[in-house]
Amino acid sequence: MKWERKDILGIRELSPDEINFILDTADSFVEISTRDIKKVPTLRGKTIINFFIEASTRTRTSFEIAGKRLSADTINITASSSSLVKGETLIDTARNLEAMNPDIVVIRHSAAGAPHMIAKLIRQSIINAGDGAHEHPTQALLDMMTIRLRKGSFAGLKIAIVGDIAHSRVARSNIFGMTKMGADVHVAGPATMLPPFLNRFGVTVHTDMGEAIRDADVVMMLRIQMERESLNIFPSLREYSTYYCLNQDRIGLAKPDVLVMHPGPLNRGVEIAPDVADGVNSVILQQVTYGVALRMALLYLLTGGTL
Amino acid sequence: MKWERKDILGIRELSPDEINFILDTADSFVEISTRDIKKVPTLRGKTIINFFIEASTRTRTSFEIAGKRLSADTINITASSSSLVKGETLIDTARNLEAMNPDIVVIRHSAAGAPHMIAKLIRQSIINAGDGAHEHPTQALLDMMTIRLRKGSFAGLKIAIVGDIAHSRVARSNIFGMTKMGADVHVAGPATMLPPFLNRFGVTVHTDMGEAIRDADVVMMLRIQMERESLNIFPSLREYSTYYCLNQDRIGLAKPDVLVMHPGPLNRGVEIAPDVADGVNSVILQQVTYGVALRMALLYLLTGGTL
Amino acid sequence: MKWERKDILGIRELSPDEINFILDTADSFVEISTRDIKKVPTLRGKTIINFFIEASTRTRTSFEIAGKRLSADTINITASSSSLVKGETLIDTARNLEAMNPDIVVIRHSAAGAPHMIAKLIRQSIINAGDGAHEHPTQALLDMMTIRLRKGSFAGLKIAIVGDIAHSRVARSNIFGMTKMGADVHVAGPATMLPPFLNRFGVTVHTDMGEAIRDADVVMMLRIQMERESLNIFPSLREYSTYYCLNQDRIGLAKPDVLVMHPGPLNRGVEIAPDVADGVNSVILQQVTYGVALRMALLYLLTGGTL
Repeated sequence: MKWERKDILGIRELSPDEINFILDTADSFVEISTRDIKKVPTLRGKTIINFFIEASTRTRTSFEIAGKRLSADTINITASSSSLVKGETLIDTARNLEAMNPDIVVIRHSAAGAPHMIAKLIRQSIINAGDGAHEHPTQALLDMMTIRLRKGSFAGLKIAIVGDIAHSRVARSNIFGMTKMGADVHVAGPATMLPPFLNRFGVTVHTDMGEAIRDADVVMMLRIQMERESLNIFPSLREYSTYYCLNQDRIGLAKPDVLVMHPGPLNRGVEIAPDVADGVNSVILQQVTYGVALRMALLYLLTGGTL
Repeated sequence: MKWERKDILGIRELSPDEINFILDTADSFVEISTRDIKKVPTLRGKTIINFFIEASTRTRTSFEIAGKRLSADTINITASSSSLVKGETLIDTARNLEAMNPDIVVIRHSAAGAPHMIAKLIRQSIINAGDGAHEHPTQALLDMMTIRLRKGSFAGLKIAIVGDIAHSRVARSNIFGMTKMGADVHVAGPATMLPPFLNRFGVTVHTDMGEAIRDADVVMMLRIQMERESLNIFPSLREYSTYYCLNQDRIGLAKPDVLVMHPGPLNRGVEIAPDVADGVNSVILQQVTYGVALRMALLYLLTGGTL
Repeated sequence: MKWERKDILGIRELSPDEINFILDTADSFVEISTRDIKKVPTLRGKTIINFFIEASTRTRTSFEIAGKRLSADTINITASSSSLVKGETLIDTARNLEAMNPDIVVIRHSAAGAPHMIAKLIRQSIINAGDGAHEHPTQALLDMMTIRLRKGSFAGLKIAIVGDIAHSRVARSNIFGMTKMGADVHVAGPATMLPPFLNRFGVTVHTDMGEAIRDADVVMMLRIQMERESLNIFPSLREYSTYYCLNQDRIGLAKPDVLVMHPGPLNRGVEIAPDVADGVNSVILQQVTYGVALRMALLYLLTGGTL
């Protein structure tokens, strides 16, 4: 199989075969980061621009390490949109980047759809590293990679996603991906954090966290945006935590070999109890490790690599 | 010919032969950025410090890509002068950089003359990436490269530069360069944006934009610094735009094959109409592409390269 | 001899043999930065993360140049702790970095002990690039390297350290190191800047700067944190300077071949007179040059290098 798409913009448009092809490729890149010399010449002479208009340390670092381990030249542009471009339109900024002949532009932007707009305008490959509350495809792919490596496949898995479903690009991308791959996806959160018509996406919706995680094979906790406390989405962190924190009591409802996942950064004691985050079921740090391999795979496939 | 100068500080001191030598070298570097493997080992083991005391994304990115495509090690130092050095003098900062044995230091500074002062004090090559309202030689060189590639030579060309001539380092460097190369340079702007004694520099001065661009071979529009609106240099953006925006009507005054240029970032609808910026005469994005090649050429020549 | 420690956290725990081994290794790296091609393939395929939670330009730049001249991949993470991690604990941030499989994490943090805590938790090598007012081991090692290269050994040397001893991690690390290496260390400063029980560390304490520097072989001036003027540690910069500035008169008290040192950045006219900073006895810029070699040596030893 050869990768055909120019860009990685979202999980919504990917087929199960495409997802499996990405994950197969990513699996083969895990080993490079464990070598004594963690570097292959695959992308020598390629230029990758990490264009992060919305602040991000972990995703940018993961992409930068992925690029460097493939011997690509990596350029970071990190700034608030205002200071970056002195009133320049996003389209003009993108066309300027295009004119410098990069091979791939990785974009994070606070506006949903920004990477898609740029992808239509410029000839280089775009990777969406998170756009507003829309999609975060590389996070969902590394999540699916982690699950597939531990569980073998998605068929028959009960996966629970808990938290602020309505405002989470991680949740959206994972719902698209996991339902597509055949998992039985359940979501839970307070009613204010559940978007309407969610059942149309093929997921089962709960306000009772216990129902969502009962007998689950995977529980993915979402980060609470604590700065939203004042927006009346939830009354208080304490009340949220009372009903939706993954603690030892609740984890007992899931299967004994349940995978505990979280995209990070953790709010310990809010959406996840410390002993659960650090417990035997947690694969939170493996997600980070696989994230580097997954991003290496995408950079490789988009520059013409084949498995 | 071999390059003799230690530094690139301004266009004012360069001879036409030197400018042509730089442009010839830059022409030969254009092709590298179009290769599948966009990298040559020319500057392996050289250290280039991009020392940007005044914010700049596009120029810094252009230099960083240029350095990496030549296999140099590039180090970015980007900060406001206050936070950077905790009260250290610019001279001490420069001597500290010198002591780390870089090969080239690229400097942007809000104070006119800062790169010149540093160049006298330290033994490494300095490239001025813009100093106050004084000079921006690499921008002017890439502008001249673009014109020469399209028009063959400067002899007999009518070139119009329109905007805030008084406060523009891009205008200054281009006026020095283009008059030196034999072009017939006209400038236009409101009287508040025209410095006194400008005719001494060998240019023809207009307040009527139409006269400047009539039968022009090249029209270079300058960016309006919109944050200066309150400084009483111009009454309003709308009034400025009425008299000095390059729109379709005005472009009709120039020659049919006129080159439309702009150093970026664009204020669409202020100094340039969108359909002109994106029109068939526009070479704005080619300027960006040639900018990388031009900077590769300078890095190459200053480290002892020969054509 | 082979390097045995996983981390470089402080000078306090190093033996004289270890210090000499580091300095011997560093001496051998000085020459690389003077070559035409300033790069060796020693650390190819190694990943070094410069994790600077407290702002620093010179130390970060020195580490980045050191890493690149050894062909390592270097990743910079520079941010205030608040914006960096959105409420994530330092431990979780460190574990996330660990999961990306770097080889060395260089950490600067405003909290004393932060690098030590991280070093216990993650398997990679940690280098302390300054933690609060605690230790700054790489600065002390480059200081000792400078002295040893000029004076041959520490035996019998009178070394004076002058300034805000109580709040200086540079002073602490140097006191640990220099007393250990057999020097006769004197410190001087106003009583408000002298910590209690300092004599237990084997140094002689003075409030009279003249006594400290009389017949000294080395005088190390500390930077005054001018922003602390309001904290009532000293009455005014002018008064401080009257009593504790190293000027030409005072330098006459020391030996004729005294080395004048300063970790930078300089407050010219406050703790050091300009003509002394730039005088024949000053080795301030050599400290910077040796700093790159010293950091190359540490990166080399921590990744398994042998002399």
